[in-house]
Amino acid sequence: MLTAVVVGAAGYVGGEVLRLLLGHPNVTVRAALSRTFAGHRVDGVHPNLRGATNLIFAPSDDIPASDVLFLATEHGRSAELLSRSPHIAQSAAIVIDLSADFRLTDEALHQGYYPKAQRPLEWATTFVPGWPERHREALRTANRISVPGCMAMAGMLALHPLAAADILEPDVIVDAKTGSSGSGATALEQNLHAERSGAMRVFAPHGHRHEAEMAQSTGLRVHMTATGVEAVRGVQVLCHARSREPIEARTLYRIYREAYGNEPFVRVVAQRQGRYRLPEPKILLGSNYCDVGFALDPEGHRLTLIAALDNLMKGGAGNGIQCLNVRMGWSERLGLEFQGLHP
Amino acid sequence: MLTAVVVGAAGYVGGEVLRLLLGHPNVTVRAALSRTFAGHRVDGVHPNLRGATNLIFAPSDDIPASDVLFLATEHGRSAELLSRSPHIAQSAAIVIDLSADFRLTDEALHQGYYPKAQRPLEWATTFVPGWPERHREALRTANRISVPGCMAMAGMLALHPLAAADILEPDVIVDAKTGSSGSGATALEQNLHAERSGAMRVFAPHGHRHEAEMAQSTGLRVHMTATGVEAVRGVQVLCHARSREPIEARTLYRIYREAYGNEPFVRVVAQRQGRYRLPEPKILLGSNYCDVGFALDPEGHRLTLIAALDNLMKGGAGNGIQCLNVRMGWSERLGLEFQGLHP
Amino acid sequence: MLTAVVVGAAGYVGGEVLRLLLGHPNVTVRAALSRTFAGHRVDGVHPNLRGATNLIFAPSDDIPASDVLFLATEHGRSAELLSRSPHIAQSAAIVIDLSADFRLTDEALHQGYYPKAQRPLEWATTFVPGWPERHREALRTANRISVPGCMAMAGMLALHPLAAADILEPDVIVDAKTGSSGSGATALEQNLHAERSGAMRVFAPHGHRHEAEMAQSTGLRVHMTATGVEAVRGVQVLCHARSREPIEARTLYRIYREAYGNEPFVRVVAQRQGRYRLPEPKILLGSNYCDVGFALDPEGHRLTLIAALDNLMKGGAGNGIQCLNVRMGWSERLGLEFQGLHP
Amino acid sequence: MLTAVVVGAAGYVGGEVLRLLLGHPNVTVRAALSRTFAGHRVDGVHPNLRGATNLIFAPSDDIPASDVLFLATEHGRSAELLSRSPHIAQSAAIVIDLSADFRLTDEALHQGYYPKAQRPLEWATTFVPGWPERHREALRTANRISVPGCMAMAGMLALHPLAAADILEPDVIVDAKTGSSGSGATALEQNLHAERSGAMRVFAPHGHRHEAEMAQSTGLRVHMTATGVEAVRGVQVLCHARSREPIEARTLYRIYREAYGNEPFVRVVAQRQGRYRLPEPKILLGSNYCDVGFALDPEGHRLTLIAALDNLMKGGAGNGIQCLNVRMGWSERLGLEFQGLHP
Repeated sequence: MLTAVVVGAAGYVGGEVLRLLLGHPNVTVRAALSRTFAGHRVDGVHPNLRGATNLIFAPSDDIPASDVLFLATEHGRSAELLSRSPHIAQSAAIVIDLSADFRLTDEALHQGYYPKAQRPLEWATTFVPGWPERHREALRTANRISVPGCMAMAGMLALHPLAAADILEPDVIVDAKTGSSGSGATALEQNLHAERSGAMRVFAPHGHRHEAEMAQSTGLRVHMTATGVEAVRGVQVLCHARSREPIEARTLYRIYREAYGNEPFVRVVAQRQGRYRLPEPKILLGSNYCDVGFALDPEGHRLTLIAALDNLMKGGAGNGIQCLNVRMGWSERLGLEFQGLHP
Repeated sequence: MLTAVVVGAAGYVGGEVLRLLLGHPNVTVRAALSRTFAGHRVDGVHPNLRGATNLIFAPSDDIPASDVLFLATEHGRSAELLSRSPHIAQSAAIVIDLSADFRLTDEALHQGYYPKAQRPLEWATTFVPGWPERHREALRTANRISVPGCMAMAGMLALHPLAAADILEPDVIVDAKTGSSGSGATALEQNLHAERSGAMRVFAPHGHRHEAEMAQSTGLRVHMTATGVEAVRGVQVLCHARSREPIEARTLYRIYREAYGNEPFVRVVAQRQGRYRLPEPKILLGSNYCDVGFALDPEGHRLTLIAALDNLMKGGAGNGIQCLNVRMGWSERLGLEFQGLHP
Repeated sequence: MLTAVVVGAAGYVGGEVLRLLLGHPNVTVRAALSRTFAGHRVDGVHPNLRGATNLIFAPSDDIPASDVLFLATEHGRSAELLSRSPHIAQSAAIVIDLSADFRLTDEALHQGYYPKAQRPLEWATTFVPGWPERHREALRTANRISVPGCMAMAGMLALHPLAAADILEPDVIVDAKTGSSGSGATALEQNLHAERSGAMRVFAPHGHRHEAEMAQSTGLRVHMTATGVEAVRGVQVLCHARSREPIEARTLYRIYREAYGNEPFVRVVAQRQGRYRLPEPKILLGSNYCDVGFALDPEGHRLTLIAALDNLMKGGAGNGIQCLNVRMGWSERLGLEFQGLHP
Repeated sequence: MLTAVVVGAAGYVGGEVLRLLLGHPNVTVRAALSRTFAGHRVDGVHPNLRGATNLIFAPSDDIPASDVLFLATEHGRSAELLSRSPHIAQSAAIVIDLSADFRLTDEALHQGYYPKAQRPLEWATTFVPGWPERHREALRTANRISVPGCMAMAGMLALHPLAAADILEPDVIVDAKTGSSGSGATALEQNLHAERSGAMRVFAPHGHRHEAEMAQSTGLRVHMTATGVEAVRGVQVLCHARSREPIEARTLYRIYREAYGNEPFVRVVAQRQGRYRLPEPKILLGSNYCDVGFALDPEGHRLTLIAALDNLMKGGAGNGIQCLNVRMGWSERLGLEFQGLHP
């Protein structure tokens, strides 16, 4: 059994990492760390884990050794922890970072988008992106993995196959919608149920940090808008793009099928009819799927690319587990079998 | 024009008092007080009031003189403010208290349910209940008015006509459901959208404070359970009662019609068919109605009495305005004309 | 008192027209017509109207005479009714059409977007757009008024001031979100609560009909995407536009203030901070406001224009009443005083 | 591999049976039958199953042979199908009926509550209740299993240990809340999102059919009220009971622990503190848990017993799979490992 430690385990992403690890046949959770909840029962904070664990949160000052370390921390804290724990940074442990600290390789870009999250320069390029569909080979031997942001992951899965095929004009508008769990578990007035319920809140009309990841990985100029809508989990991105030349739907479909036809967690969803003919997160909650689809205007120029996922799963914790599965040579679906619910 | 001051105006009940006063043809708002938001624009906290007011919150240390004073404060603070402001307590101003400080007249009962909210003993019985359907005459000359709790108001409107007619056995179970706005505007983890959304949370399986008001006013032994459900506004109570003797539906209907047939804000809703045949708050949000209905088992013994209201309206601010209208001899619907929405 | 008749009064827009007319001090409702619910009580279908009316739905075959006729009908039926009722078409009655039949003046455009909704050619250009902010003068004498579509109205209010100032490049992407009431009151599987709840459903990735109205009225090339999100009421549009030349936020603000500073129902909402710093429908439900705001990227080139409204109010029925108020020379806020709720 | 056939597979319970069987390591789905959707892809109706199956719905006239037959049909149809298919009734196949046709053994009781659902009298008592916690031994050899109703299952799990210990007075009031998926997948106006969203709809103030099951199995006199609240999945019951003699919380706790301490899918949740200290379905969606808890008034007389589950899981399909696991001697958690989500 592989041993695992989770830092930031009382947060929403950390709780999801815990849930998945506790259900994973090949992993044992050695410790769940939390600054705020040290000494409390894990299932007091994550009541869905009742019956699945008797773990108590441990303080996060001292990180015990383990085979794999999940960092589900705030931006800036992952780098800080690694700096303060050279034994971890230098050990053979696999580090799977769910924060943003090592997502952007270019330092200037990182500082522009995350001015407060400093990181050791020499580490900036040592993390392999936690993006199995694109970096599977590198992940098989990676000991440092940086899992993409939730909205970034959705956008990258929608954009990359077409960007790689050089089909798109470089300017793309990404319109992202997200549920409230993306705002984290800290009590803030704007996240109160009475304030957040029923919201359509454009919290980032320009310059959301996830656009930098999309741009970095696709070479496109991505302009992103992020809106909080009524949901706890779930992200949907609409990418408004243009093709360089007129294109047919079947060509798009072929490209996506070639990219994702064998992927365990990306489904191409672009049907002519039906209630759920395009991707939406409602049916993905708790699952590790990212559904990717598209629509094309009659002239074949304007593309609406759509991707949906559960921000805590394929947009975070689930994707991290998938990366671990790849890294260990296990079946990628191990511990990620939940299919999602309807209705 | 009557002048009004609102204390606790940045809260949800206080904001609703402000909204109603700003739309009231006979009242001018002199000041909106808030400890936390003093110096901030009112419409920054209550964005629905954009265009309706340019008021700035004033600190609540010093309460300016006015014709009517609304206290939308936490329990304990109304009594404290009145104690510290003898000029108010002794002035001719009408005081409409929306806190719980003067709802229970019996001191032992008050101390049992509100151990931390002390109050001057000599005032305990000087407040007329803000319950126009029952205390209309007393309210016409009252200078101290204590508005009932939201779930209490619903339960009392359902129970009182039958209790007064001595129809019910004394033990009644009241099952109350409420939205999240009843928990107030303070940032607490349990009220985060991600935690509160989709809840069916039995936060008071026994001994909720509103049961004391129902018991006090009806003479019944009320055992209340309170559950938070998915809603921002809205309260519904189900009173499980028994009749002393078998009773017919038409008798119940007649009693309610006699009690409420001429009331501007209580509607009897007990239909055989239809989507909305019994009271529910969905269609009452923003209105001052309390809908009251009932169902009877075939033996004519078991009664399910049902009442619904918007906790910030007939369950608080709106009821306070209605009391003011009664006190001033104005039409009771003044400033309370909103009919509610469908769908 | 002006007399009014409402056709399609059992639908959601029709019910809202009824509610507003019943609360309007200068109007009497003569009849509420419905094919499906003829013979049923109005407040059985619209339970919020209990206590406000005893009207019974009348069949819609024969439209009684009145001073003003509201057509809250399906697309195609308004034109059909007018064709079949020459006495109405020729009478002096004011006709306020809430369907799409006369929104597009160009016949080819109309046939392209509404292939099944035929209309008499000679009428196509006789309707004044029900858009008071732009066509107020024409509305003062108009006897045929065509109220814009809900998402179109929002987009037009956001785009028009900048389009009129020739600031924008012609290609604009409009990303619209809408609640479920926009789908109407007919029982369809995809609109079941279990299916529609929690949706982020891209039901029109291209070619939604409301884009034609926006294009017609602004001269821009509008490419619209429409997504159903979790809400009953409420529309929000995000217009992704570019300025021809770099522009400053204060210039944008000035243009919008000049356009809407004196408007009773359009508020400019573009703040640096705060929970509700940009428009969202949550605080507008039941009100006739359309909030319009914007954000600008640091280079001053990319504009995100945002508008929000209640689709049944400023996006339909409320706007129709405002048009009537303009037409009659009444205060525009008459019957539309509801300020919206927080929270 | 066991072969399975599902009748009524396009409904919500049937879809859930399919999902669970497709993920079950020991079962192969031979056919999914549906009158309405015969010829359509299963994942067109249940889009969460994309990638998990290529099945096409078959018509339900002719039921193919299989090792186990799930009947997820409307009340009355299970009995009808068995009557028309003597080869099934007489075969060795295991029949797991999720309808109400064989839940009530007493014929008069059945006819009273289900007047339209006739059944062969000789079968009425041949079904073992699908209630593993109580009938595990009988289930190990049962070939006819009748799964309880969703609200009944919750109530029975809360009531039975105390009823069996003869602790309760016989009259119990059960206040049940349920999400919209319990109303099924048929398009009815009252189930439209716009009508059902935000509901607190007392659809059965007296005489709900599930009360008969609770009464039958516990010997108590159960008076049940059912209210639809805002949720898609989820049932919560509050049982208002009285103890014959004063009782202590620790005694109650002990009784429940003895009853359920070794159960794989019943958790005792009755904590002094915490956000989720009593059972609620929010954290159970998709899982097969039923959480059972209680609260006691200070006098030790009044008990509020609380149970929560996912109506399509432990309240239906999941429970049916658990019964199959018991019947086959497999681990009861097989195919039911999903732990539920937080938040």
